[in-house]
Amino acid sequence: MSKETQKKLINLAHKIVNEINHGVDPYLEIPIRSLTNVKWNEKDGLLRLGEKKSKRYFFNVAYARKFMQTLLIADFCKDLIEENIHTSIRDMYYNLKRTLPDTKENTFETQDESNPIIVDLETNLDTLRENLHLLADRKGIVAGNVKIKDRGDLIDWSKLGSGGWSIPSVVEDIKFVKVNAKFVLVIEKNAGFERLHEDKFWQKYNCILIGTGGQPARGTRRLIRRLNQEFKLPVYVLTDNDAYGVYIYSVIKSGSMALAHASEQLGTPSAKFIGLTPSDVKKYGLEKFTIKATDRDIKRAKELLNYPWFQNKEWQREIKLMIKTKRKAEIEALSARGLKFITETYLPEKLKKKEFLP
Amino acid sequence: MSKETQKKLINLAHKIVNEINHGVDPYLEIPIRSLTNVKWNEKDGLLRLGEKKSKRYFFNVAYARKFMQTLLIADFCKDLIEENIHTSIRDMYYNLKRTLPDTKENTFETQDESNPIIVDLETNLDTLRENLHLLADRKGIVAGNVKIKDRGDLIDWSKLGSGGWSIPSVVEDIKFVKVNAKFVLVIEKNAGFERLHEDKFWQKYNCILIGTGGQPARGTRRLIRRLNQEFKLPVYVLTDNDAYGVYIYSVIKSGSMALAHASEQLGTPSAKFIGLTPSDVKKYGLEKFTIKATDRDIKRAKELLNYPWFQNKEWQREIKLMIKTKRKAEIEALSARGLKFITETYLPEKLKKKEFLP
Repeated sequence: MSKETQKKLINLAHKIVNEINHGVDPYLEIPIRSLTNVKWNEKDGLLRLGEKKSKRYFFNVAYARKFMQTLLIADFCKDLIEENIHTSIRDMYYNLKRTLPDTKENTFETQDESNPIIVDLETNLDTLRENLHLLADRKGIVAGNVKIKDRGDLIDWSKLGSGGWSIPSVVEDIKFVKVNAKFVLVIEKNAGFERLHEDKFWQKYNCILIGTGGQPARGTRRLIRRLNQEFKLPVYVLTDNDAYGVYIYSVIKSGSMALAHASEQLGTPSAKFIGLTPSDVKKYGLEKFTIKATDRDIKRAKELLNYPWFQNKEWQREIKLMIKTKRKAEIEALSARGLKFITETYLPEKLKKKEFLP
Repeated sequence: MSKETQKKLINLAHKIVNEINHGVDPYLEIPIRSLTNVKWNEKDGLLRLGEKKSKRYFFNVAYARKFMQTLLIADFCKDLIEENIHTSIRDMYYNLKRTLPDTKENTFETQDESNPIIVDLETNLDTLRENLHLLADRKGIVAGNVKIKDRGDLIDWSKLGSGGWSIPSVVEDIKFVKVNAKFVLVIEKNAGFERLHEDKFWQKYNCILIGTGGQPARGTRRLIRRLNQEFKLPVYVLTDNDAYGVYIYSVIKSGSMALAHASEQLGTPSAKFIGLTPSDVKKYGLEKFTIKATDRDIKRAKELLNYPWFQNKEWQREIKLMIKTKRKAEIEALSARGLKFITETYLPEKLKKKEFLP
């Protein structure tokens, strides 16, 4: 993937040199990322960028600076790929920040200037920052009956004790050597991961267990998608019963507005929601263990109600219940029924009855 | 360690039953944790709880509720140890929350009530919550020439590809099978961990690399201490050049006020600070890559100035420089000198010249 991106970077440079040689004003074509150009594609179930594009001409005072910055970053990323090293977007900013010779002009004033240019480049080249060798934040842990090859090491996700494998920010180069699992269970909370891991849930139910530690990092979302796409593994997501939990699920499933250009690499449209649902609260008698929803929770829940991919009776009913009761519940509330209730009753029942939200 | 704690829990129960049988008002003796009872012990270099204790009598309306709560949690933890399962303090709260029969009284109203009782129990029994089988938050990654045994798995920290081993919240039961390293390098940022990991820094310099992702979790601090104590490995800490970074170092080294009762298990008094220092900014010409310190940064720096373990000329000079220049710098600022500057120049020079702050 990086090699392909490298070629695209070189082609971009050739295009510009060519324009200069022919006395044409060089320009870059960048898809517009404002909300008006983000649409949910019903066919593939992903948030996508539309067709609208803007042209940035070099000989236009409004664009010249961004033009210069884009080429600087393109050049930087080409070097990263050639030298086969990765770096964070913050390191990149520091590395590229300088004063242009004989001027008082800095290449970048703050990182707020360099970050969006990376996305410009991603969309212009139709690639991911991972292929530009730029690191996103990392968090997320995985365990399961899987063997992978990564940087020459053979890693067995079933033999990592209580720890688990720390998911890196770039998972493009991982080779799956053996994948013995029936599904992927994604859990929002790392403490929940530890509980399920200790009970060897992934062993008993032959699944891959992924802890995201809140909203999953790009590397984790990419890993979920790869397991889903390459091995046809169903993905079930377990979050708190609150608007934030549902949003986490939504991002895993359909992608996010901000990263709509990358949905195809990061989203898993076939993912299903295994819980906690507002209905679970009643079903499992957890009313006493709920928490009052804040105004912000309710506001977010009302937004979720309008998401195109939640326009089905199951989600409408659950989200409306959330708004009506004004209560939320954490995954840990299940512990009120016993510490092993989640691993021995709740999840097995849901899996057996295929009790998922779409 | 858990077995020992189990015995202590049983002894506590025996003590109380005995008091009841003898018609004595049962009581619990809890060390006082207010700041007046926290002192830095110059001899061992750790923040410690003093001798002051309070007695909580059962037949005292002011204490009866806490007394009941303490015994509930003690009983819960004894079961956890017996069944050999671990759980988070939040799961525990949900599991123990109930309405007492024939009353309107709940065992706990919120988690704010159960959390401090855990610390009461830790101090009363002179143990760690890890030995009570209660999980703290987990984060932190490790790589290096080390083999460990954990839950029956043999794990090689040098063969985990780009990921690394995710450090669990309880590291008490880890057995070190092979430790081939000269020192431990702790880095505050996970992106920095990835950079150093990709450059195989731990291989070239024969060290153990630990990424903490901000203020290290208890499991990570415990792991650092175990490596230091059991294998006499020097520990070097790399953080941002700002008051928060220095505070992270301070907590790794001397422990924290809030967990003063656990310093002996969590602190590593011989740890040294490898950077970034305010002096580094000048030395490596990073002035242009610094950030303006906020009022809060300056306030915190002034507090650091008074810490007993920073009463040496090196730290006084550096912290005063931080306050005087009103500038801070991130680890990533080193990338202004080249992406590999940190691994090929900065760290090797510091290690060679033993340029550490105490």
